[in-house]
Amino acid sequence: MPAGWPEMSAAKPMLGLGLIGSGFMGKTHVFGFATATRVFDLPFEISFECVADQTPELAEGARAAFGFKRCTADWRSMLDDPKIDVIDITAPNAFHKEMALAALTAGKHVYCEKPLAPLAADAMEMVVAAEASGRCTQVGFNYLANPMLTLARDMIAGGELGEIYSYRGVHAEDYMASPENPWTWRHDPVGGGALADLGSHALATAEFLAGPISKVSGDTQTVIAERPGPDGRARTVEVDDVGRAFIKFASGASGSIEANWIASGRKMQHDFEVYGSRGALAFSGERFNELQFYDASDRSGREGFRKIEAGPHHEPYGRFCVAPGHQLGFNDLKAIEISGFINAIAGKHPEPFNFRAGHRIQKLVETVHQSSEQGRWLDVPK
Amino acid sequence: MPAGWPEMSAAKPMLGLGLIGSGFMGKTHVFGFATATRVFDLPFEISFECVADQTPELAEGARAAFGFKRCTADWRSMLDDPKIDVIDITAPNAFHKEMALAALTAGKHVYCEKPLAPLAADAMEMVVAAEASGRCTQVGFNYLANPMLTLARDMIAGGELGEIYSYRGVHAEDYMASPENPWTWRHDPVGGGALADLGSHALATAEFLAGPISKVSGDTQTVIAERPGPDGRARTVEVDDVGRAFIKFASGASGSIEANWIASGRKMQHDFEVYGSRGALAFSGERFNELQFYDASDRSGREGFRKIEAGPHHEPYGRFCVAPGHQLGFNDLKAIEISGFINAIAGKHPEPFNFRAGHRIQKLVETVHQSSEQGRWLDVPK
Amino acid sequence: MPAGWPEMSAAKPMLGLGLIGSGFMGKTHVFGFATATRVFDLPFEISFECVADQTPELAEGARAAFGFKRCTADWRSMLDDPKIDVIDITAPNAFHKEMALAALTAGKHVYCEKPLAPLAADAMEMVVAAEASGRCTQVGFNYLANPMLTLARDMIAGGELGEIYSYRGVHAEDYMASPENPWTWRHDPVGGGALADLGSHALATAEFLAGPISKVSGDTQTVIAERPGPDGRARTVEVDDVGRAFIKFASGASGSIEANWIASGRKMQHDFEVYGSRGALAFSGERFNELQFYDASDRSGREGFRKIEAGPHHEPYGRFCVAPGHQLGFNDLKAIEISGFINAIAGKHPEPFNFRAGHRIQKLVETVHQSSEQGRWLDVPK
Amino acid sequence: MPAGWPEMSAAKPMLGLGLIGSGFMGKTHVFGFATATRVFDLPFEISFECVADQTPELAEGARAAFGFKRCTADWRSMLDDPKIDVIDITAPNAFHKEMALAALTAGKHVYCEKPLAPLAADAMEMVVAAEASGRCTQVGFNYLANPMLTLARDMIAGGELGEIYSYRGVHAEDYMASPENPWTWRHDPVGGGALADLGSHALATAEFLAGPISKVSGDTQTVIAERPGPDGRARTVEVDDVGRAFIKFASGASGSIEANWIASGRKMQHDFEVYGSRGALAFSGERFNELQFYDASDRSGREGFRKIEAGPHHEPYGRFCVAPGHQLGFNDLKAIEISGFINAIAGKHPEPFNFRAGHRIQKLVETVHQSSEQGRWLDVPK
Repeated sequence: MPAGWPEMSAAKPMLGLGLIGSGFMGKTHVFGFATATRVFDLPFEISFECVADQTPELAEGARAAFGFKRCTADWRSMLDDPKIDVIDITAPNAFHKEMALAALTAGKHVYCEKPLAPLAADAMEMVVAAEASGRCTQVGFNYLANPMLTLARDMIAGGELGEIYSYRGVHAEDYMASPENPWTWRHDPVGGGALADLGSHALATAEFLAGPISKVSGDTQTVIAERPGPDGRARTVEVDDVGRAFIKFASGASGSIEANWIASGRKMQHDFEVYGSRGALAFSGERFNELQFYDASDRSGREGFRKIEAGPHHEPYGRFCVAPGHQLGFNDLKAIEISGFINAIAGKHPEPFNFRAGHRIQKLVETVHQSSEQGRWLDVPK
Repeated sequence: MPAGWPEMSAAKPMLGLGLIGSGFMGKTHVFGFATATRVFDLPFEISFECVADQTPELAEGARAAFGFKRCTADWRSMLDDPKIDVIDITAPNAFHKEMALAALTAGKHVYCEKPLAPLAADAMEMVVAAEASGRCTQVGFNYLANPMLTLARDMIAGGELGEIYSYRGVHAEDYMASPENPWTWRHDPVGGGALADLGSHALATAEFLAGPISKVSGDTQTVIAERPGPDGRARTVEVDDVGRAFIKFASGASGSIEANWIASGRKMQHDFEVYGSRGALAFSGERFNELQFYDASDRSGREGFRKIEAGPHHEPYGRFCVAPGHQLGFNDLKAIEISGFINAIAGKHPEPFNFRAGHRIQKLVETVHQSSEQGRWLDVPK
Repeated sequence: MPAGWPEMSAAKPMLGLGLIGSGFMGKTHVFGFATATRVFDLPFEISFECVADQTPELAEGARAAFGFKRCTADWRSMLDDPKIDVIDITAPNAFHKEMALAALTAGKHVYCEKPLAPLAADAMEMVVAAEASGRCTQVGFNYLANPMLTLARDMIAGGELGEIYSYRGVHAEDYMASPENPWTWRHDPVGGGALADLGSHALATAEFLAGPISKVSGDTQTVIAERPGPDGRARTVEVDDVGRAFIKFASGASGSIEANWIASGRKMQHDFEVYGSRGALAFSGERFNELQFYDASDRSGREGFRKIEAGPHHEPYGRFCVAPGHQLGFNDLKAIEISGFINAIAGKHPEPFNFRAGHRIQKLVETVHQSSEQGRWLDVPK
Repeated sequence: MPAGWPEMSAAKPMLGLGLIGSGFMGKTHVFGFATATRVFDLPFEISFECVADQTPELAEGARAAFGFKRCTADWRSMLDDPKIDVIDITAPNAFHKEMALAALTAGKHVYCEKPLAPLAADAMEMVVAAEASGRCTQVGFNYLANPMLTLARDMIAGGELGEIYSYRGVHAEDYMASPENPWTWRHDPVGGGALADLGSHALATAEFLAGPISKVSGDTQTVIAERPGPDGRARTVEVDDVGRAFIKFASGASGSIEANWIASGRKMQHDFEVYGSRGALAFSGERFNELQFYDASDRSGREGFRKIEAGPHHEPYGRFCVAPGHQLGFNDLKAIEISGFINAIAGKHPEPFNFRAGHRIQKLVETVHQSSEQGRWLDVPK
């Protein structure tokens, strides 16, 4: 060892990762773990142990691309692998429950992309299993990991907006806007649709910011009645393309959300506006490093929504960059989410968004659907 | 007459104006008439005959400030004044019906600020009287006079957005955001509230752009439960501070609107977004000389919402200014509305927004209220 | 006179207007006078006496359209018309001097569109004549009449930005962007070009906000070398399409301006940014009812440029509209300019932008041109 | 090995990294390497071999935080370490030359943060050494790695804007805006100042987009004359706080740039506007996932700057995220830069921005300074 090189410090304990699925979200998770370990001073070193996909070829491709040590076409083979501590599920929604229950039973921590399961009742089974297991769980709601959302939540909680009057939220994209987009599993009547896919984010953000929702009145619409099926023949679409809800918060404030996956031109309209007696906030996912803040106590003639740009004052932005205004990316949000999960595994703080929280969102989605079908307000079960 | 001066051409016929009320809206109307006569080649010359207000002092102040020939504290005295052709009503809502009926009976054309009357049934009486009278009527919905709204309507009607999928509208301001704002006639349970005051605009714009609304589901909320009454003692507020509605258009498209007069920081959030199969439009009243247009047929990698700036291509902008991007003001919109009304009086085209149209909006407002009370969807009567 | 009508109050004195030219700017002036008399409590009533244009037909058309009492094809005939108090010159630049000198000699107040004259030396003759005449003069620099610019100036003067560090200004449009746009008088080497036409505005705004400019270094560029002449044959363009200047203010601050009439896509880019030790301002003419303000003393983590929307706090916005955020239009700015001029005629305050001020701008333009030719910094003569 | 796990594929060759410096930029580089290896299918696996900093404590802290195998307080010890292939220099500017020359001599590839060296002459020595060595070099100009800049460059090169008329660039931040910010090495008259620090980016972007700059006219200003020195006593500042330049491109187009590190409120104003005969582009570093595009061939009445949001059509965005509009972060740009460098090492394509390119920028900076001192235009040496 050359002179001047200190001894290596004691290595951090390893946390072995087993990933199921290597599509868009699988890739995002890998980036997130890789970034989190560099950006944050985590209590574990991450070991990319194994990736599973449907075929050996897919799995090997993912292994090579993502830098895992091993791969498999049989995700169950990871369950009794002692080097794997965390099972990370990015497979299609329909498999989440089976995989998560098996992983929990095997004593693994579980990170599951949202939604937990197509049906809230299934999600509740997962919650029960998680809480019985003593393992940590995390559901992927990475928009909540944005420092600007944390800032917004803290400003609201800290009274900077005064009493909250009203809320307006939306999550709109356009990936289903063309009637020529084929029928996929996302159009399956069990658990699919814009409300489940995007409205879940809008609802999660609403509760994250303004607290529990107690009542909803839903309006869900199928707009594109048929889409080309796998065999090329038209297949009837039963899920919603647009879902809306009036919401009442336990605090007494009221609001609305919209989910829309046929909003031509929108790529990331995860927006909200919150109005209170002392001020307001406005946010757009299209420019997610900014938060617009209106302070009603500003001097007359000088008041206006100010564009707060994300910077080191907004934790944990400063872990990524010491200079303000340089902007985080989508993948960075995943890294923040993951750092929270890993710290929770180490017992450092509660899980940021565990299975119970994930189930909560599905319960909300389900209640909105039921309300829409019944054409009346419904209480959201606690 | 000095050499070089041509004979004056035959004078245009005069149209005598009698204005009732000289507050914010009265002033805006006067500016509008004055501007309209200069900007447009109208079939009449406007004669500012008489202004009426509650006291002789108020009336005389208005007369001097606005340049009317005469003034009065008794608006009825204008009814049999043969020099007055048009009665323009900007008095508080509660007087609209009485004034309009009297004016129509006296054979005057009537221009009435919105709403026609607090109750839709009263407004319907006004419609009947108007249609029986053979006189022209106009209700003040000047946001519809914006060339950008005309452009939006024409683009939708012309198929530039393809099939309309969904609609999102809002009209939010903050003039009632402070709980210290006193109880006024705007808080009167008959006809007052955010939905009537601002939601009427949001609903009018929705129908202007996307056609008739056939069903609504309402949600109205009183947020600030008490306000200081005239005697300084707390007075219970029974009207809505926030009103929302899900809407279904006769076309099959669905949408939502929100009215909010406690939206801290908002001064003119008359916004809408319309999504269709071939494109989308987004508009904000905060920047009402712009229309954002997404054309889904733009080349891949070059698509995006484009900021169309109002210009001479957007009639009647060019009457005000030959150069694009120079921007119209709020008062200019009133002038456009008035020019339409005056041309209608001359028989040049239908009334832009007559009593029947005004009644329609109130019917919508009323149906939203009823729906909210009943907690269910209601059909909008035709 | 019917009961309830008070006597008419004593009429205001009349101020007779004689307008020369009825193109874009002539029309804008008429709108401005008409609006000013309604919006402001002016010391005079305006009488639209006479409009002059090149031919009797043009003049008569303007008379009828604008509501003047008389018209003429011989502008000189207005000089000894005792009913005319103000001569308003919107004829092409080359005629400004002759007309203004004649009007001043005839004892008229003079309102002259910018520039005073193609050459600063000619403009100085006009200044001398104006100051000898005892009449009031006004040069059209209506962007300065914007309440947001007044606000910016007052904020700077009041120290809200601290010590001024630097300035960046631009006025860019695209009406000359196409090489197919024909050669016109605006391309005449005497007095034409982007710097004279648009840079004059950028320089006027710079001095309006940050005080006198003491030194300049210019860079002017002809980009489109030839344009189609009146006979269809290519004609060499000798004026600048783009003009830039580094500027040093007497205060010690430095900055730059750019004038550009070939800036494709820009319709009203009259923009500036001012940076100081305690804050900054940013403004765009594309959204001229807004002023962006950064207050460096805002709390850490809450700072950001805030969008101040024009409202009644920003005089004289409230004369047009009692509600904030409703927006003024381009023609309203002209009305504000005119109200200042009329009040100056009544001796109520100094002329807002008189011939001396107009000459100053031309001297600046001329010095930038000379600097560009000489390739070095030049002092701006006082 | 459990059933279903395929054999690991042949490992990629390793590329050993030795990093000098662990401040803001060192950290950014580490994130960049870590992300690049996950996001891109690189020809090498990166091995984080050793990090050097000024003291053993700093070095060990960096090692642990960044995940290097070894650390050192003697950067020279890395020169003969056979496991290190690339020396990555993020030490203060004054050390760049010595370090880079030593690394090249030792046969290492060199990645050096900008600027190469305070003086262009020194940078040229580094270029000569680099080109003699046969090793690959890279200078950190990560803003150029933004897919939106690549898009802009390709659109210009592909003629989408037609003939380029003019250019406006700026890079402004506010980290030196307070006079209380202490004197640091960035204020050293050799190589420091806003023009060197930020203007270098503005100049690099200008040439990246619009080709070589042939002439400049500079204007550099020291605004804050004194700053607190290390001993607390005022120390005279000799470097520029604001630097401006008129520029002429070899293409004939003209433009300007501004560098400003005292622009209160600006955190990342790396902006440009390019105007051409057929269209225009506008970009702001504050929202660097967007490019505003004006297409002059758009239909009349539908034209306007459109907001192109970064997406998979804009390489290599799709490597990070398959969905458009989800946004890259600052650290992602570094990863793109690094992937280009690593591919160059593998011989896959030319170095994205090698020492010669870095020297070029310094030559531009130096010429602007000389021009400012001499008060005249200067040719930029080739």
